[in-house]
Amino acid sequence: MSTTTHETTIAAVPDLPIIRITREFDAPPERVFDAHVDVEKVRRWLGPRRLTMTVQRWDAETGGGYRYTHTDDDGEYRFFGSFHEVRPAERIVQTFTFEGFPDGVCLETMTFEALEGGRTRLVGTSLCESIEARDAMLASGMEVGVNEGYEQLDELLAGS
Amino acid sequence: MSTTTHETTIAAVPDLPIIRITREFDAPPERVFDAHVDVEKVRRWLGPRRLTMTVQRWDAETGGGYRYTHTDDDGEYRFFGSFHEVRPAERIVQTFTFEGFPDGVCLETMTFEALEGGRTRLVGTSLCESIEARDAMLASGMEVGVNEGYEQLDELLAGS
Repeated sequence: MSTTTHETTIAAVPDLPIIRITREFDAPPERVFDAHVDVEKVRRWLGPRRLTMTVQRWDAETGGGYRYTHTDDDGEYRFFGSFHEVRPAERIVQTFTFEGFPDGVCLETMTFEALEGGRTRLVGTSLCESIEARDAMLASGMEVGVNEGYEQLDELLAGS
Repeated sequence: MSTTTHETTIAAVPDLPIIRITREFDAPPERVFDAHVDVEKVRRWLGPRRLTMTVQRWDAETGGGYRYTHTDDDGEYRFFGSFHEVRPAERIVQTFTFEGFPDGVCLETMTFEALEGGRTRLVGTSLCESIEARDAMLASGMEVGVNEGYEQLDELLAGS
């Protein structure tokens, strides 16, 4: 099955400890949002292709939380956070920590904007604790996980 | 009963959307921390003296959430958030929204540092989404709630 892959933009916001990620999808906001809250769908797309995702918790609701493990041949990478607000088909605000840096926390906001033709623009904003933390995240190879994750989300939304 | 009140420092961090609040208490970290997670204690000190706090939810644990209402003669002020991490007697990371500005979110980190003589230094860091949001919060009269709240916490810790 053919899937159209769109360009993902990952950019630092000048003078603020913020990373902004913009990506369009060929599905309406309701479906893109659903793929962020339904754990069976999340497991199929989140993160790089080479990693397997094991979910310990995924309560994607206002005041909920999550915890998951990404595994490859080299080991395990554990992540956790809380869902500040889950506003259906519109907005998700959550926290994010990689347990390798247990005191590092980001506040992430995702907005789901309806475009013409039943399409969606997803804008993700990661608010970090310092310019240094922002730049370390940008230098961490995060773009592989973001790009491959969104390609896998394209495939899921295309029904493949 | 006499209670010693310490000075509270509230300061913007230059060039970052961060407010830092520093305050010492005449009680060890375990007791100051407990007054942040035990809802019956929280209700007795959080916020300005003139307001009554009604708590809809206070699950102060990693991945938990909270929701409360402050009421005075003029009306109600509603707040909610999630607990990203609750690390006993050491650190609390939570989100914060005033429902009057439903899209505004801060990420708040509190650290409980043991001082000599069974005392504690509490450092609170509020990470806001922009310099403008930081300055609006500083201009909102927040210092009344912080100062009076911590005076009430002094009184609670002194056993009065």
